Amino acid sequence: MPHQLWTQSYGKSRVRIAKVDRDADVHQYTELSVDVELDGDFDAAYTQGDNSLVLPTDTMKNTVYAFARELDPCELETFAWTLGSHFVENFDHVSHAAIKITQTPWQRLVIDGEPHPHAFSGSSTERQTCHAVITAPTKDGEDPEGAIECGLEGLTLLKTTDSGFSKFLKDEYTTLPETDDRIFATTLTAKWVYNDTPDDWRGIRDRIRAILIREFAARFSPSVQATLFEMAAAVLDAEPAVEEINLAMPNLHRHLINLSPFDLDNPNVLFLPTDEPHGNITASVCRERPEEAHAHDHG
Amino acid sequence: MPHQLWTQSYGKSRVRIAKVDRDADVHQYTELSVDVELDGDFDAAYTQGDNSLVLPTDTMKNTVYAFARELDPCELETFAWTLGSHFVENFDHVSHAAIKITQTPWQRLVIDGEPHPHAFSGSSTERQTCHAVITAPTKDGEDPEGAIECGLEGLTLLKTTDSGFSKFLKDEYTTLPETDDRIFATTLTAKWVYNDTPDDWRGIRDRIRAILIREFAARFSPSVQATLFEMAAAVLDAEPAVEEINLAMPNLHRHLINLSPFDLDNPNVLFLPTDEPHGNITASVCRERPEEAHAHDHG
Amino acid sequence: MPHQLWTQSYGKSRVRIAKVDRDADVHQYTELSVDVELDGDFDAAYTQGDNSLVLPTDTMKNTVYAFARELDPCELETFAWTLGSHFVENFDHVSHAAIKITQTPWQRLVIDGEPHPHAFSGSSTERQTCHAVITAPTKDGEDPEGAIECGLEGLTLLKTTDSGFSKFLKDEYTTLPETDDRIFATTLTAKWVYNDTPDDWRGIRDRIRAILIREFAARFSPSVQATLFEMAAAVLDAEPAVEEINLAMPNLHRHLINLSPFDLDNPNVLFLPTDEPHGNITASVCRERPEEAHAHDHG
Amino acid sequence: MPHQLWTQSYGKSRVRIAKVDRDADVHQYTELSVDVELDGDFDAAYTQGDNSLVLPTDTMKNTVYAFARELDPCELETFAWTLGSHFVENFDHVSHAAIKITQTPWQRLVIDGEPHPHAFSGSSTERQTCHAVITAPTKDGEDPEGAIECGLEGLTLLKTTDSGFSKFLKDEYTTLPETDDRIFATTLTAKWVYNDTPDDWRGIRDRIRAILIREFAARFSPSVQATLFEMAAAVLDAEPAVEEINLAMPNLHRHLINLSPFDLDNPNVLFLPTDEPHGNITASVCRERPEEAHAHDHG
Repeated sequence: MPHQLWTQSYGKSRVRIAKVDRDADVHQYTELSVDVELDGDFDAAYTQGDNSLVLPTDTMKNTVYAFARELDPCELETFAWTLGSHFVENFDHVSHAAIKITQTPWQRLVIDGEPHPHAFSGSSTERQTCHAVITAPTKDGEDPEGAIECGLEGLTLLKTTDSGFSKFLKDEYTTLPETDDRIFATTLTAKWVYNDTPDDWRGIRDRIRAILIREFAARFSPSVQATLFEMAAAVLDAEPAVEEINLAMPNLHRHLINLSPFDLDNPNVLFLPTDEPHGNITASVCRERPEEAHAHDHG
Repeated sequence: MPHQLWTQSYGKSRVRIAKVDRDADVHQYTELSVDVELDGDFDAAYTQGDNSLVLPTDTMKNTVYAFARELDPCELETFAWTLGSHFVENFDHVSHAAIKITQTPWQRLVIDGEPHPHAFSGSSTERQTCHAVITAPTKDGEDPEGAIECGLEGLTLLKTTDSGFSKFLKDEYTTLPETDDRIFATTLTAKWVYNDTPDDWRGIRDRIRAILIREFAARFSPSVQATLFEMAAAVLDAEPAVEEINLAMPNLHRHLINLSPFDLDNPNVLFLPTDEPHGNITASVCRERPEEAHAHDHG
Repeated sequence: MPHQLWTQSYGKSRVRIAKVDRDADVHQYTELSVDVELDGDFDAAYTQGDNSLVLPTDTMKNTVYAFARELDPCELETFAWTLGSHFVENFDHVSHAAIKITQTPWQRLVIDGEPHPHAFSGSSTERQTCHAVITAPTKDGEDPEGAIECGLEGLTLLKTTDSGFSKFLKDEYTTLPETDDRIFATTLTAKWVYNDTPDDWRGIRDRIRAILIREFAARFSPSVQATLFEMAAAVLDAEPAVEEINLAMPNLHRHLINLSPFDLDNPNVLFLPTDEPHGNITASVCRERPEEAHAHDHG
Repeated sequence: MPHQLWTQSYGKSRVRIAKVDRDADVHQYTELSVDVELDGDFDAAYTQGDNSLVLPTDTMKNTVYAFARELDPCELETFAWTLGSHFVENFDHVSHAAIKITQTPWQRLVIDGEPHPHAFSGSSTERQTCHAVITAPTKDGEDPEGAIECGLEGLTLLKTTDSGFSKFLKDEYTTLPETDDRIFATTLTAKWVYNDTPDDWRGIRDRIRAILIREFAARFSPSVQATLFEMAAAVLDAEPAVEEINLAMPNLHRHLINLSPFDLDNPNVLFLPTDEPHGNITASVCRERPEEAHAHDHG
């Protein structure tokens, strides 16, 4: 056979659900978008048009609906794990199930100082994320294994001072002036894994988020790189359950506007916000450097 | 002459600026996108390729920069008015200048209970808006006239109960069941005009916003229409300076998911959020109905 | 009563349909997004929570589906007219129905030189549009009246030369250099109305589109304004059925990049494409100037 | 040491350029967005705030500009390779340079049957892509090594018939009916690598694209999976220089609309286009299965 299927995955993306917990007078509201992806012995579908082992992606969607009815989806990690385990446990030919959940946050409205029992605002770009990959056990009777990566995205932060960039490498294409005072703006994406099951999945999320924000603002930033590392290291310092954390921090430039043509000075007060081009800084920080050679990620 | 220029406008859109007020240890940060649009005697540019009265849109951009340096742009209304007046006062052939400002809100970070002096978060989809149209005076020596419309957009609100829709008109295409309990979600756009210059432009904005949110959540909603009217009326009741207010409230449906194929009930707990199609309800409410015939806006 | 409903409209947006005409071996495929909006005597819904005259927006959606099944939706104008007429003819309290249709174009695939009978590509940002407003007759027995505006949007055009901008008005904020050779890029939105019912709605659309493209490219452009006017005038010249045409042409700048820091010249070869800020030129051209004063549109 | 930098990359994204080749009367126009990303010995920047080995991302942008002036950027692969090699060859501490190029296609306008010398349309969502990773040689005097992945994205295809999905796996959550006639719509992303340097980089791109489109439309599709495999296999069959190809084909559903409430049938003529949820099918097909275990990609 001259060519063969090498890798495959198939699934359903953007399965949206909203669940209202009405058990008490004070309602809870959870809104998620779920992606399901299966890997395993699906070769015949590709190479022979044989669908007999293909669970329809429409069925995956229905499964999300049914599980969201019966379980509490607001703890993303356990919902993802249970959902993914269903597929590897019920279908022998499924070797891996990947569940990605993106949660849209809705904040309870506070009106005249009082939390409202059932009204919420949803004007945030921030999202809570969870990506679980469940692997079928290699031997009968064993439990599925897996990995859960937690995270957040769309958290936009800015400081108007306490940031500089100087003493950098220069070549014949370098025109950037050194500065010891610039605006630092970023939209943070964070992903992390635990070395142990946390007692309180939502509590540790909230703490990690608070640490990232606090460290961003805490002290002078000599570069995005240095602040990124401080933010990641502070999470590892404060939370022993976090084994590794990856932060992506685009440098969303605010360029100083040249006002000299209009006989005006600009002592770091007026800036041009711009979306493109933008810098991109990404790094993973872990507790202990694995012995293998330094890994490179050009994804 | 076989055809003529009937209407025109030209200008610059999406002129972005960020201004840092560093006068005190506690910084203020303002981020705006400004549109400038001029109308007047520009016919020769269109019909004869004569640019002698065309102020370049690049110059409009520079003017925004220079005015933002010299003025305080964070009071949107006075910034828009001053900017627009510049064009009608300095150029006799400009009959109208329209300035539209969209403000990206940045919230001061609160870290360990303390407001941070120079760090902010900007993860909100909400925007504050201001649209000023300045008209050249018809007689020499008079001041320019104008109108200022204030507003907000991107304010997403939801309530999980206290909303229904029943006893509506039915025809042969109606399949919607009546309900006395549904989710009500919307992304509010509000625009209003004042009958007098407010003492505190920012204070009244904040109060209007708070009233809109409070009324959205306040009581049972028999329809988007009724709640929209209550929200608008409450603003007019509380703020005598508001002459008219226009609200656009899309009905961002959360459809009840049918779980009966899986032998599951769904007592108003699991919903499908969807962006399309969506309902659209828009209305203006004013203090006193003008005597002219009911106006229709199909814009 | 202290405040009153002044204007209102309500409806359903983004009702999407795809229709396959399978009557012949060669299939036709039409894909539309339809907005329906009604105006009329809906005050009680707003002011009294009385839904008895409110046709649900869900019913509007169903009506679009049923009409799309029974009619040929690919002639946008007649489909919009018939749909809108349904609402004003069947509901006495509906004074106006506005139908907006946006068509996603799908091009038949040509494979090895042969048009394929049922495969299409849909990778275009261009859209065909139609906006019909149907007004209830003021007297019984009369037919509804109305207006149809046809158009297109998302047609992106660029020329690498034969464009300049010079001899323009300068003030103290002007820094733009004059040029007799620049790149001219725009994304055209066109809207026009007919003074008579065209024989062939699709034919005249295609001809208007071809004229707009041809004139854009035809000769030296001294300004966006002048080229816009030539494009509009050419449509009026060639198509007597067109009464008025409105063109919106943002100036999507390609700025010359300064390469002198790298000891490189840049004889109009390397440019920076940018989305913001951008110029905005909009004008309407009609056959004959109405006698009323020059109209201004600051929308 | 309690925590260490594990992986990093930094660079500049969305560096946009437009180049006009004016050497002949017939102009060529190329528009690209370039991402540059460097890996190597950058640890001190993260852990010690030492920028001495950090080439600013602004310099990367300038390098793209200078190289685009001096080279012909329209052959994406050689431009990416040369650009990436510059960084690994000039900076000993850079171990890898990744260059990602996305090309916006501009089609030459054909007016009255004649190709226009300098006017183009750019209304396509399709993009040509190239991702080159250049690795520093491990020994002095050796050339850098690297890999180039070519591709396209945003190519939207649809067929109105000759597609079905039946005899699939069913469980208690399956409600999808079997069908032997449905609409098949997708937006194709393709990525491939060569086993040898092609003689004509642009020629082979065009041929691969044509094969993908032809096979999509060629015959009955029993599933997205089977058609995806046929498309990939046809490329490998026709182009010996292609070693492996990865296709991602979301299933952009067109659901049959139930018209029975309105006493209308729907013999596969009226469909609801929807963006979410959507199926996702991704697979790589290669010439020869490597001996290692079947690889899984849950990316």
